[in-house]
Amino acid sequence: MELMHAGQTVGFIGLGVMGASMAGHLLAGGYRLIVHTRTKAKAQPLLARGMTWRDTPGDVAAEADAVITMVGYPSDVESVYLGSQGIVQRARPGTLLIDMTTSSPALARRIAAQAMARGLSTLDAPVSGGDVGAREAKLSIMVGGEPAAFDRAMPLFQLMGRNIVHQGDAGTGQHAKMCNQIAIAAGMIGVCEAMLYAKKSGLNPQTVLQSISAGAAGSWSLSNLAPRILQGDFSPGFYVKHFIKDMGIALDSAAEMGLDLPGLKLAHQLYDRLAASGGENLGTQGLFTLYARQLELHPNPTQTPAG
Amino acid sequence: MELMHAGQTVGFIGLGVMGASMAGHLLAGGYRLIVHTRTKAKAQPLLARGMTWRDTPGDVAAEADAVITMVGYPSDVESVYLGSQGIVQRARPGTLLIDMTTSSPALARRIAAQAMARGLSTLDAPVSGGDVGAREAKLSIMVGGEPAAFDRAMPLFQLMGRNIVHQGDAGTGQHAKMCNQIAIAAGMIGVCEAMLYAKKSGLNPQTVLQSISAGAAGSWSLSNLAPRILQGDFSPGFYVKHFIKDMGIALDSAAEMGLDLPGLKLAHQLYDRLAASGGENLGTQGLFTLYARQLELHPNPTQTPAG
Repeated sequence: MELMHAGQTVGFIGLGVMGASMAGHLLAGGYRLIVHTRTKAKAQPLLARGMTWRDTPGDVAAEADAVITMVGYPSDVESVYLGSQGIVQRARPGTLLIDMTTSSPALARRIAAQAMARGLSTLDAPVSGGDVGAREAKLSIMVGGEPAAFDRAMPLFQLMGRNIVHQGDAGTGQHAKMCNQIAIAAGMIGVCEAMLYAKKSGLNPQTVLQSISAGAAGSWSLSNLAPRILQGDFSPGFYVKHFIKDMGIALDSAAEMGLDLPGLKLAHQLYDRLAASGGENLGTQGLFTLYARQLELHPNPTQTPAG
Repeated sequence: MELMHAGQTVGFIGLGVMGASMAGHLLAGGYRLIVHTRTKAKAQPLLARGMTWRDTPGDVAAEADAVITMVGYPSDVESVYLGSQGIVQRARPGTLLIDMTTSSPALARRIAAQAMARGLSTLDAPVSGGDVGAREAKLSIMVGGEPAAFDRAMPLFQLMGRNIVHQGDAGTGQHAKMCNQIAIAAGMIGVCEAMLYAKKSGLNPQTVLQSISAGAAGSWSLSNLAPRILQGDFSPGFYVKHFIKDMGIALDSAAEMGLDLPGLKLAHQLYDRLAASGGENLGTQGLFTLYARQLELHPNPTQTPAG
């Protein structure tokens, strides 16, 4: 087996904020890029840099040594891979297929099985690190699939990320990403409730952060998102609507395994309520806006020494 | 106003694991220590080092320039301060009273008001950092009360901690500590659910931690307690029973302010169930043992590529 190397052709499908950065790094690394994305206009800056357009995912796959997908929902993953004239049908035997979308572990195993039957290798390789991680090639990449396929893909991964971990067989990359989202979900509830309590009790929340950020309550979210909450900055690093998608996949996957995860369930409910009231395009720290309604409903009580 | 200085007399009430270490640092810093604790036998090692025993909290307070309390529950705080022949009644005017117990913010304000009427200064100054933080004099100390009292107490605090933050008026130290516990509570749910999902889905949880600990899912709990969970080490850094006490105070305090904190409520329920089934003397990471029952109920499904 030959490792991927500069000069080979990589097909890249899905050129959103994440995908565009990632494909750009591969081009800069010396690969030939053949691309497709739902809205061709979004690809123009990359086509101007020398990438080649194809009209369907299948057309991309037919010419590529490796295909990377970074699309939206599991339903999108399913149709680009398993649809008629899709990637699995059109790719030449020996092609390496890498789905970097956050998607369903069960679907990843289904794609792997069908691809194997056609002589193709697959990896599920979702990422964390967001648009900044993608832009700076500092993504954490969680990979499931055959070890040989993992080794073969490593030169590509190294152009996009820096914490690249092989988790196990097909589907385990997606499962690991679910663990990531599960830990974030309940943690964000804790951050929002701590900040709400701080405001309501008349504390200076910045001063509270001085006391609690470096200790046992400390977290990436508390250090990075609580300050944005206090500045009223709810702009997206990671969109509420995408987080809801991910939590939905995790809940489905947990249900298939017979697991009850009440913290994840609560987070999913709260974020659903946030989205239903117009917050789906906020960043995940926008959860605080749902809690903040309690500040309006019950004005801050007067604090007295004898209170 | 004179700052506290070596040679003065500090009364210390409550010589549990935390209090014994803290009182020891003050003695080593040159203060005269007069002490009381519920079970005299526990004080023997400190008496052997030169501390002086008194039979009641009031007797301690009557001789001290400053009194520090580190007792168990808000009911204990109330009785040592406000009981007949208690600290507030027996302390000489000008004495500085510092409660370092994690206790009720409303009670802290009530003690402050009654103490002020008798010419006494008070601070509520709960800590985080646990027994290790107490032993190594690295506690984080969250302080509520008059600025002058805070300044006066600083030489004492500096012998016990290193992140010493004045949060505001009486009660705000306790409120800040509640923010700390609220952030920890939901965060621990996230850590346990992520580790449960990892195990159930057949991942190597250690490998999952490699992928997720340094990113957006990262937290003190994930870095410090998840590894203990995976080793089956549920020994107490911080006891489940004490965490339940703290969450109960936070819920009461939130209710007084009209706040609904569903994540905190869920954590309190789960820890209550854990305690009810014999887990009250585990460390807080023992919450995983409640979740782990799901691993037994539903055996790990066979993983197949087509699964």
